[in-house]
Amino acid sequence: MKFSIIIFFISFGFFSCKAQNKKPNIILIFVDDLGYGDLSSFGHPTIKTPHIDQMADEGIRFTQFYVGASICTPSRAALLTGRLPIRSGMSGSKNSGNVLYPRSTGGLPQSEITIAEALKDSDYKTGIIGKWHLGHLPEFLPLQHGFDYYFGIPYSNDMLPPRYKSAPKLPLYENKKIIESDPDQRLLTKRYTNKAINFIEENKDDPFFLYYANNFPHTPLYVSDDFENVSKRGLYGDVVEELDWSVGEILKTLKDFKLEENTLVIFTSDNGPWLKRKKNGGSAGILYEGKGSAFEGGFRVPAIAWWPKTIQANQTSRAIITAMDLYPTFLKLAGADLPENKVLDGQDIYPILTGAKESAGEIVYYYMRDEIYAIRKGPWKAHFITKPSYSKESPLTHNPPLLYNIDQDPSERYEVSKGHKDIIKKIQELYVKHKKGVKPSFSQLDLGY
Amino acid sequence: MKFSIIIFFISFGFFSCKAQNKKPNIILIFVDDLGYGDLSSFGHPTIKTPHIDQMADEGIRFTQFYVGASICTPSRAALLTGRLPIRSGMSGSKNSGNVLYPRSTGGLPQSEITIAEALKDSDYKTGIIGKWHLGHLPEFLPLQHGFDYYFGIPYSNDMLPPRYKSAPKLPLYENKKIIESDPDQRLLTKRYTNKAINFIEENKDDPFFLYYANNFPHTPLYVSDDFENVSKRGLYGDVVEELDWSVGEILKTLKDFKLEENTLVIFTSDNGPWLKRKKNGGSAGILYEGKGSAFEGGFRVPAIAWWPKTIQANQTSRAIITAMDLYPTFLKLAGADLPENKVLDGQDIYPILTGAKESAGEIVYYYMRDEIYAIRKGPWKAHFITKPSYSKESPLTHNPPLLYNIDQDPSERYEVSKGHKDIIKKIQELYVKHKKGVKPSFSQLDLGY
Repeated sequence: MKFSIIIFFISFGFFSCKAQNKKPNIILIFVDDLGYGDLSSFGHPTIKTPHIDQMADEGIRFTQFYVGASICTPSRAALLTGRLPIRSGMSGSKNSGNVLYPRSTGGLPQSEITIAEALKDSDYKTGIIGKWHLGHLPEFLPLQHGFDYYFGIPYSNDMLPPRYKSAPKLPLYENKKIIESDPDQRLLTKRYTNKAINFIEENKDDPFFLYYANNFPHTPLYVSDDFENVSKRGLYGDVVEELDWSVGEILKTLKDFKLEENTLVIFTSDNGPWLKRKKNGGSAGILYEGKGSAFEGGFRVPAIAWWPKTIQANQTSRAIITAMDLYPTFLKLAGADLPENKVLDGQDIYPILTGAKESAGEIVYYYMRDEIYAIRKGPWKAHFITKPSYSKESPLTHNPPLLYNIDQDPSERYEVSKGHKDIIKKIQELYVKHKKGVKPSFSQLDLGY
Repeated sequence: MKFSIIIFFISFGFFSCKAQNKKPNIILIFVDDLGYGDLSSFGHPTIKTPHIDQMADEGIRFTQFYVGASICTPSRAALLTGRLPIRSGMSGSKNSGNVLYPRSTGGLPQSEITIAEALKDSDYKTGIIGKWHLGHLPEFLPLQHGFDYYFGIPYSNDMLPPRYKSAPKLPLYENKKIIESDPDQRLLTKRYTNKAINFIEENKDDPFFLYYANNFPHTPLYVSDDFENVSKRGLYGDVVEELDWSVGEILKTLKDFKLEENTLVIFTSDNGPWLKRKKNGGSAGILYEGKGSAFEGGFRVPAIAWWPKTIQANQTSRAIITAMDLYPTFLKLAGADLPENKVLDGQDIYPILTGAKESAGEIVYYYMRDEIYAIRKGPWKAHFITKPSYSKESPLTHNPPLLYNIDQDPSERYEVSKGHKDIIKKIQELYVKHKKGVKPSFSQLDLGY
């Protein structure tokens, strides 16, 4: 009798392991150019985002979440490799453009190990829906970087003629093939949502990693008929409200398939709002400046983590987190080893998600291409170089750096270097030490077209 | 048998009427200089306001709530009379100061009927804890304006020597008497909270109206020992976090006495942040400018309404509401008649609270003293005169007015009068019509010292 009970438990444990899908699924929703102030749950007065707000109500909201760069290509490289883009050759340099363009010949080097690659080795099914922007020649596309499935536009949705003279028609890929040219962008969010739902359904019995990188609210803005003129905020609001619907559909699918207690979902943005686009660009809310700058509005984005029962409902975390923290966090959850011989720039934030710890790292490097413009250490942020976003002004170098207390002054209004020589000195030492520890890779953005 | 059952129900109904306190209690929490961006639930990244956030989670959050003026005295007059301050003589004029000062001889005229007065006539017990600022001579104090009980400082907490040369020591009143001079401001929030709780307990069997107007986070900032250095945001954050605690205590008291389902609680602020105070002043978040200006940051404040079961949980309302809407709303709830021969500037927003309607009024007048600086009509805001807050610059007159779409551009960044002549014309007509309908009263703020 005793013996058979033991057998029963052993075999139950064995079979249920697969069925219960012990390794958690991971869904990473990464939208494009959404600002810190653009969600109702982050204070926007007119944009309605009930599904994302509910995700926050059921999970944890981060108010100090930073991306690895304030523009697209390097931010995505940082996210997927867990490394500062300068280490992977994806930061750009003085001679390069800001990002990869349709005819760029560079891309994320094969030597980099993406989240998808690491999780795939750990028996995950891996999919990307949406924007890639890490190289568009066949050798750089998602299926060469650990993804089992790809559906989307490989770069920004404005990278088409006549804006980009030499660009081909906007390509829509499925896996390695272009399946359409110039797809109707009004249907993109709906199609992406359907593909994401399909991916979840098809892989529900395996652990899966889904990277859902919608091209919006990057301009040009498009919405489906259902979302035309729904928002008081105008077209930008319509687009965000359709994204909100899309997030709602993903969470609903997880609940329908009873996967919600075994799936970590992260929602965030690749960089701050594109202010140059005026009303067609977003807002950083209380933060100063936006995309393409080293001010808070460029690097700090709204972020939410959701995982019912594992993450307590209705939490707000003020910990300093970076997008590069997700890499070691996801790998740990998947039981995957961290890559050897790779310097990682993040740390496992699982203890933050569960509330076991209140703070994570305390340092943020604000790189603009291959130069350090600013460093945050705890509450303090020192600006070594400043330049407004997308301006033709020359960058201003500050020696000693300008100093702000970001916890007390998130809008970067009050320069406080006076009386804080000790803090400036510490950050200057950090600067020197960090520089010594970084070996820039060959810049992929400097390769020709 | 039938007969006795009827008797039973009649008598049960009769006695329970008192016990169940059918007329709802009303608590109006009105803090001083808290900005639109200063609560966690309105997007502040470092200030922790868990109790106020929970109030929002259990109630309705307003993202387009306006006060009657962007400075203290006229804003409070508008709130308590339901009328634009120019009608009650409380707006100030070109020759007057901004607000009433310690030696001012003017005050809210007896001809005005405050919320307290109207509710008292309707069998409410009425109390005010905190700041009055509507006249400091004996004939103007709260007990002359419908309040049964007063505990607090009658004006701003900075109105003492040496800042105000001729001012007496800061007086703390209980009812009509000064009970202390120069009370320890570090203890104010605790003492106010205790008095508010006592008032609720003492009046729990009657319908009551409690106006809790804490003097903070107006400068100078003070907190009790328990809240010293608790906030990442610094002293300003400490003060807001103590206010948050105070709100939590009030709601907890209502729950303890099982009054929560029969009590409407409103939380809001008298005007936007005092930016001139730098880190000791708050933030308007996504909105432009602050206290003492006619920009959104001056007039639009965070607001939350809470009334479990009557108000659905977790709502966000984007309706355009003004503080003057509370007057007819409260009177209706109390079964009180609106005063005859008084022009009111608000409307009953009960249908907004219950979700029966989505929009209320659509017009906001932005008065600076006795001049109209701007008018909002629906999404459009026209600035007739502009001037930065607390600056010595001369006001700039705009003819035609500057036009902004506030729903789409809450930060007032993009002037859009070009192509919108029709809208400008409509707002200009509204301006003329409104001016004709307003008879300014004698300015109480022009009276001597």
